[in-house]
Amino acid sequence: MAKQVVFTPSGRRGSFPEGTSVLDAARSLGVDLDSVCGGRGICGRCQVTVGSRPGMEARDDRLSARAATETDYHARRPLGEGRRLGCAALIVDDVVIDVPSDSQVHRQVVRKRAGVDALPVDPVVRLHYIEVTEPDLASPTGDLERVQEALSTQWQLRGLSVVPYVLQRLQTTLRKGDWKVTVAVRDESEIIGIWPGFRDVALGAAFDVGSTTIAGHLCDLLTGAVLASSGRMNPQIGFGEDLMSRVSYVMMNEGGAERLTSVVRGALDDLIGELVSAAGVDRTDILELTVVGNPIMHHLVLGLDPRELGTAPFALVTTSALHTPAALLGLSVHPGARVYTLPCIAGHVGADAAGAVLSEGPHRRDDLQLLVDVGTNAELVLGNRNRLLAASSPTGPAFEGAQISSGQRAAPGAIERVRVDRETVEPRFQVIGQEPWSDEEGFDASVVTGICGSGIIEVIAELFLAGVIASDGTIVERPESDRVVRHDRTFSYVLSEEPRIEVTQNDVRAIQLAKAALHAGARLLMDHYGVDQVDQIRLAGAFGSHIDPIYAMVLGMIPDCDLARVSAAGNAAGVGAMMALLSGVARREIEEVALRVEKVETAVEPRFQEHFVAAMAIPHKTDPYLELAKVVDLPARTVSAEGRRRRR
Amino acid sequence: MAKQVVFTPSGRRGSFPEGTSVLDAARSLGVDLDSVCGGRGICGRCQVTVGSRPGMEARDDRLSARAATETDYHARRPLGEGRRLGCAALIVDDVVIDVPSDSQVHRQVVRKRAGVDALPVDPVVRLHYIEVTEPDLASPTGDLERVQEALSTQWQLRGLSVVPYVLQRLQTTLRKGDWKVTVAVRDESEIIGIWPGFRDVALGAAFDVGSTTIAGHLCDLLTGAVLASSGRMNPQIGFGEDLMSRVSYVMMNEGGAERLTSVVRGALDDLIGELVSAAGVDRTDILELTVVGNPIMHHLVLGLDPRELGTAPFALVTTSALHTPAALLGLSVHPGARVYTLPCIAGHVGADAAGAVLSEGPHRRDDLQLLVDVGTNAELVLGNRNRLLAASSPTGPAFEGAQISSGQRAAPGAIERVRVDRETVEPRFQVIGQEPWSDEEGFDASVVTGICGSGIIEVIAELFLAGVIASDGTIVERPESDRVVRHDRTFSYVLSEEPRIEVTQNDVRAIQLAKAALHAGARLLMDHYGVDQVDQIRLAGAFGSHIDPIYAMVLGMIPDCDLARVSAAGNAAGVGAMMALLSGVARREIEEVALRVEKVETAVEPRFQEHFVAAMAIPHKTDPYLELAKVVDLPARTVSAEGRRRRR
Repeated sequence: MAKQVVFTPSGRRGSFPEGTSVLDAARSLGVDLDSVCGGRGICGRCQVTVGSRPGMEARDDRLSARAATETDYHARRPLGEGRRLGCAALIVDDVVIDVPSDSQVHRQVVRKRAGVDALPVDPVVRLHYIEVTEPDLASPTGDLERVQEALSTQWQLRGLSVVPYVLQRLQTTLRKGDWKVTVAVRDESEIIGIWPGFRDVALGAAFDVGSTTIAGHLCDLLTGAVLASSGRMNPQIGFGEDLMSRVSYVMMNEGGAERLTSVVRGALDDLIGELVSAAGVDRTDILELTVVGNPIMHHLVLGLDPRELGTAPFALVTTSALHTPAALLGLSVHPGARVYTLPCIAGHVGADAAGAVLSEGPHRRDDLQLLVDVGTNAELVLGNRNRLLAASSPTGPAFEGAQISSGQRAAPGAIERVRVDRETVEPRFQVIGQEPWSDEEGFDASVVTGICGSGIIEVIAELFLAGVIASDGTIVERPESDRVVRHDRTFSYVLSEEPRIEVTQNDVRAIQLAKAALHAGARLLMDHYGVDQVDQIRLAGAFGSHIDPIYAMVLGMIPDCDLARVSAAGNAAGVGAMMALLSGVARREIEEVALRVEKVETAVEPRFQEHFVAAMAIPHKTDPYLELAKVVDLPARTVSAEGRRRRR
Repeated sequence: MAKQVVFTPSGRRGSFPEGTSVLDAARSLGVDLDSVCGGRGICGRCQVTVGSRPGMEARDDRLSARAATETDYHARRPLGEGRRLGCAALIVDDVVIDVPSDSQVHRQVVRKRAGVDALPVDPVVRLHYIEVTEPDLASPTGDLERVQEALSTQWQLRGLSVVPYVLQRLQTTLRKGDWKVTVAVRDESEIIGIWPGFRDVALGAAFDVGSTTIAGHLCDLLTGAVLASSGRMNPQIGFGEDLMSRVSYVMMNEGGAERLTSVVRGALDDLIGELVSAAGVDRTDILELTVVGNPIMHHLVLGLDPRELGTAPFALVTTSALHTPAALLGLSVHPGARVYTLPCIAGHVGADAAGAVLSEGPHRRDDLQLLVDVGTNAELVLGNRNRLLAASSPTGPAFEGAQISSGQRAAPGAIERVRVDRETVEPRFQVIGQEPWSDEEGFDASVVTGICGSGIIEVIAELFLAGVIASDGTIVERPESDRVVRHDRTFSYVLSEEPRIEVTQNDVRAIQLAKAALHAGARLLMDHYGVDQVDQIRLAGAFGSHIDPIYAMVLGMIPDCDLARVSAAGNAAGVGAMMALLSGVARREIEEVALRVEKVETAVEPRFQEHFVAAMAIPHKTDPYLELAKVVDLPARTVSAEGRRRRR
């Protein structure tokens, strides 16, 4: 007799003959209930519990008694209280079936903002256990055709193609597994892996290839769990500190692009080695990879010559997302694995910006978000669900410590935090790699090597607040202090005596130019959007995560905004790469969004120049840091310990 | 004002505003009018003439006067009498437009049966000249996206993917061609090549990989012309003469499959070198390749281990047609080229049989064709448009000269034609590589090395007709001739004294076993079809092309059939490979046919054994050769000089 079945939380319902398995009922209603083994009681992914609703209380006997397969499974991996295997439990009465989140293929995993533990999952690569008909003389089809038949009848997957590697392994694997194998299917269209017997390991790796550092994350493609994270310097630094010097290297040297491609791919491969060794897994467990990066890194990883990106009109080879065999990029992972590169938005707004958009999601918001990722160029995205605008602003490398007299990359020994006494103009500072401030016990001045981007921002803002720097950026004479010294017709501020670190007038000018470019880019987007103010500002990337939003506001780097709504986004591009690794929905989302972003080119907009000139001055006369300190117990540093830890 | 336009031979018609170009009118009506340059007067492929019909006589002024582009084109390549460029000629009055066959993309080229000059064309790879919008700062799309846009607007080709090689060359090629490029598009779905400016060279190569020889043909993909043909030994012979000994080699030697794969790919690559050098073209002009071969050759070329094909149930890795990048197979051709392997039909009925079916076309016929391809196994296909049956019969290698006391491969020095005097039983024979018969002036006995398959067939049939061999295959005593000599309890026939070449009783038994297997296989298919006779027999492959149908009938190798309807099919498999090279329609045809062929497995059919036993005897008592000689002036050899020439 037909029984009523209601699935929660989906609410789908139907009536089924008594004795129908819960898994079959779920499948026929399109309920999202996971399975790798296809209902054979092996994988344990189809666990459900009996739920209740008015008139249909939760009673165990609404399902059949525990079956042998469940007892066997329980002996291997204990089933939780009330948990049943959907493939073994048969419907014997009207019943409410609750599908817990960990039994759903597509799950909305709650994402912790600081540090990423798990992400929304909609697997691009899925594993399917199949039992394949043996060949016999009477029906001489190929082994592949019988695998395809099994995928069709057991998993409703049809018309699948197959990568050459799988074709080569097909016969031995089928025989080794006694005609029971697990296949990995990518995008419901291509068989990319095959293993004898049952298997439920499918890992992926996501990379954010920055011009300075490369960050990688190893994830479980099936659960979304992050298994390991690691980072290393981009060895291309040996060919030029910043992006433009690397493009110059390519232009000046025969085979230069190939060399840069080779070293960055080598670094990715080494990072893969670190990740799998940290997680205690094998390289060949990695079935899918994603890469984000600025356009030049994106091109070099893919083996595309970046020289057109060095000069106007900065033509990309392609803005589209690509799916490249990992083997073609020289990465030692599973031979069937592919590398998904996120789309680029424009010649200077790359796949890293696309990753940041995917992660921060301005297009999913009602209010107006300004997303800022500062590197050699600032990539800016402004918008909400109705409209998105993007631009790249030529900040130059000052924010990365370049063009600054004592500047350096953010690395151990770099001054990153600075406070200047408003009266005495005496400084105190903190150095990457050392906890104590310079005026605290245990501080070791001998490790100081220079000043990094966030440090130069802070010292200039503090000097402005202390009156050492005027609104127009001039360092003014301060006869009562020997911290301000004269060089010819300008003054410098001595931040450290030993080692000698000065903030020169040129340093201030360089930062003024950079911050004016950033501000003008944001203003230009606001003009295009037709607004005077934004609702939220997110500062992404390494620099964005380490500058104190207060000082960014003091200097006028960013447009006016409620300070409480200005915050660091962490490595938003890298999180976007992970989202794209774990979710086909996320890929389609960012591909669609990238197409509809309106690109604003600062170089051809006369108003950019106007905004730029207007933004040169330091606008605020108030000291918001001190204002804030009056009402809240503000720490000396507002950047998280997490942020500091990562940078080491 | 609208003008009436009628296209012939398609008969499509429509009305168009005065001033519409003929090419535009053809396109909007879906008339098959070729163009590579997209209507820019460069390629000259859209040539038409003004035709006539009652009430609409042929008058030049029904089209606009000759345009500058036509005059320019004419100066480069003279236009034929009355020929106009469809892209330049504008409709100014009602007109009949005749599209000659050489201006059609899809053409039914008449195929010469003996020797192939041109084949039906439906190009899988097409060239498209495009003019691409230059990038500019205001619309920063990628170069690829602008190429795709040009293909969409200028050629109505949408959603094309791109191979990595093209991606890497994209930017330099666009700039070198000043934003005018020609792209090669495969299967209307993938961009596989790009060249600066206009280009109209697109070549392909088709290969028939036999266990003994490899034949290759170089074709023009656009016109279907065969530019060069060549062949060479399959160097795998060094690892075993016949197929089964090569599979044994793979089973007994670690890395054996890889070695066999490597040498056969090397031979293909060398053959490509010969073909392009003979035609005076470049390797990179080759954009597409096809391969046919028996299942073991098919697997080895693709790098698939053939050992499952060595034992029952002879499971193929796959029966499907594959599209493999040529670079993966180690072939130096255009980096975007792919190799299409025709489908296999069953474990012993391979892509070579599929090629022969495509070429001979039993599925296109009303009468019943038996297609026989003899190698180590005989591949048999029986049927017509309603039904197709296939089987493989275990003839063993006797027909290839193996298992015969003085047997050898068909190569210079091998006896291939034999006549035995019906009275004196004295022989005369002809040797590969030498024109004179053994009893003619100029014959040099010193070059004789052995006897090949067609020679052993002829000598046994002749001996039967001369009464030296009885119907049960026994060599009988012939006291009056010293040609028949005793060895223990059996007799041998001395075909040549110096060098000594005998036909032993064992030789006759080996041929009896082989021909019985062939006959039994054919009978089994006829049983399954429910017929006692076939309408036509085609003997394909090297052996099939060199045996005289008369002797095949005498020995009872093949079922009864009107002798006039038994003929050699030449290298039908190779012709099939060429057809698949030149035509997407042909590919879809053979893929569809391969799926619906009914496979009959001789090893599991009890009736096969019955037929086999019954077929051991030599059935015919009449001498059809002499009978025929009474009515027609039959040459000493009925095999064409062409056939002989090819074998040398």
